[in-house]
Amino acid sequence: MPNNKIFIGVIGAGVCSDEVSRLAGDVGEGIAKAGAVLVCGGMGGVMEAACKGAKRQNGVTVGILPGTDKGQANAFVDYPISTGLGEGRNLLVVRNSDAIIALPGEFGTLSEIAFSLRMGKPIVGLSTWQVSDKIIQAKNAAEAVSIALDRAKASRSES
Amino acid sequence: MPNNKIFIGVIGAGVCSDEVSRLAGDVGEGIAKAGAVLVCGGMGGVMEAACKGAKRQNGVTVGILPGTDKGQANAFVDYPISTGLGEGRNLLVVRNSDAIIALPGEFGTLSEIAFSLRMGKPIVGLSTWQVSDKIIQAKNAAEAVSIALDRAKASRSES
Amino acid sequence: MPNNKIFIGVIGAGVCSDEVSRLAGDVGEGIAKAGAVLVCGGMGGVMEAACKGAKRQNGVTVGILPGTDKGQANAFVDYPISTGLGEGRNLLVVRNSDAIIALPGEFGTLSEIAFSLRMGKPIVGLSTWQVSDKIIQAKNAAEAVSIALDRAKASRSES
Amino acid sequence: MPNNKIFIGVIGAGVCSDEVSRLAGDVGEGIAKAGAVLVCGGMGGVMEAACKGAKRQNGVTVGILPGTDKGQANAFVDYPISTGLGEGRNLLVVRNSDAIIALPGEFGTLSEIAFSLRMGKPIVGLSTWQVSDKIIQAKNAAEAVSIALDRAKASRSES
Repeated sequence: MPNNKIFIGVIGAGVCSDEVSRLAGDVGEGIAKAGAVLVCGGMGGVMEAACKGAKRQNGVTVGILPGTDKGQANAFVDYPISTGLGEGRNLLVVRNSDAIIALPGEFGTLSEIAFSLRMGKPIVGLSTWQVSDKIIQAKNAAEAVSIALDRAKASRSES
Repeated sequence: MPNNKIFIGVIGAGVCSDEVSRLAGDVGEGIAKAGAVLVCGGMGGVMEAACKGAKRQNGVTVGILPGTDKGQANAFVDYPISTGLGEGRNLLVVRNSDAIIALPGEFGTLSEIAFSLRMGKPIVGLSTWQVSDKIIQAKNAAEAVSIALDRAKASRSES
Repeated sequence: MPNNKIFIGVIGAGVCSDEVSRLAGDVGEGIAKAGAVLVCGGMGGVMEAACKGAKRQNGVTVGILPGTDKGQANAFVDYPISTGLGEGRNLLVVRNSDAIIALPGEFGTLSEIAFSLRMGKPIVGLSTWQVSDKIIQAKNAAEAVSIALDRAKASRSES
Repeated sequence: MPNNKIFIGVIGAGVCSDEVSRLAGDVGEGIAKAGAVLVCGGMGGVMEAACKGAKRQNGVTVGILPGTDKGQANAFVDYPISTGLGEGRNLLVVRNSDAIIALPGEFGTLSEIAFSLRMGKPIVGLSTWQVSDKIIQAKNAAEAVSIALDRAKASRSES
């Protein structure tokens, strides 16, 4: 049953500080260690750091790109999906995640948080937009991954 | 030069109170009186009230719908555009607006506010999500329409 | 009941001969005279000629654009809808038409014909791709418009 | 450089005969043996048979789905991508393929062939719509896979 894989989305800024990059890398590692697939927007910053972290643990990474050219993907994306939807691909990142971990980001990240909340997807926040108390606050990468996996599995067993 | 029409987007909840409905109606009237086209998501609540207001002043209304059935549109939409994009149509509402007036809404509205900010579109807030100081606060419908029109015209002349 | 307007889609090449341009212009005039809204991809060639024809009869034209810039629309589009979906907008042209008139075109036109047939939309062909006997052949612009309107009305009353 | 994987698209009917199913299975096996990723629309018929064939050879399969529910995917899809774009996902199947192998199909398949031709993607036909001489005819599954891989690699080295 290959479709039973858990997909965890990681969202955040396309350009980020070293500190946020380390945080994203730890999140990516945690997702990979748990055997889940990491989904993201496939570009730089938080997305690249998370994918790089996942690949350190031989995880699998999917990058859902805004453009039509797969060359847009960062070097740690295993399966780049080009959409040609521009910012509309943000919605697809969310749709393809069983749970989302949100790191610091700007308005693109905010749009993804809004869609997650709109769809009732489990969402864990790490120092990000706190626009709703439905965003579960995590203290660190390990906790964020642990909560995201639990919620993802719970939402799978419900449906 | 028919393409020179100004399009003002109105965003907000699909179900709303009478008070918000009156506010949306006043916004719609103001847009129509100014000769601008009202763009929205075409459904109920704020969208319907705004369209109804615009039609009281013989304005023109465009509703960009989530589904594939134009019957989804409220009765005050002149030009229903069915997209089949689901929530992805929120992005099209923003893309098709020269400026946006945001009324109270939930996470769908928040996604539209996020996209507006992401694209650098002028956005005026009326008692809505205050997630950025780039959202210009208006005290009432008349002021919101006036600011939105000014900013829309300014952004047209820049480009 | 503003949503009861009939929308007739006109599809065809973005660059075309004078002969095809005249044909498209006649189709546009016919749609406008009948009081229907002309929907198209909003660009040049067949699309522009059809819109120009419709405007000669004070018709209303909607152009569903591939890009994010309304400036892409030809000068005879009343309501440009920018999608940012690239060729994906072809699907929206079809979705927004109660019936389609297909003129000569290339592979983009073929994709629209395929979607029309896939969705079971009435489609009338004027010297275009004859990939299915479900495409109703018309001898001239007047006949194409007449058939398209009849089928559009019939499909409305069914649903 | 994980992004250097070759993606071969397989398109065709959602319901098909045993004979076409065998053909699709052989195509899927061939793609997997060559180490390429199989991309398809993720549903039944040709898509399912091709994915099943690829999995017999431990290949990797990506299914780009019309709906928002990954449960829609056939059981042989490793990476289901839900889009919520309906038929619009056909465009994404094509965009994500370096070359396409087209099997017998109906109007959905025709729309994918049209998009492939529109984008100038290499396309190999196996008893399918022959709407352009740009569709390279193959005599059997092995030949189709061989041509598709050659063209995919050639288009990669060009760009």
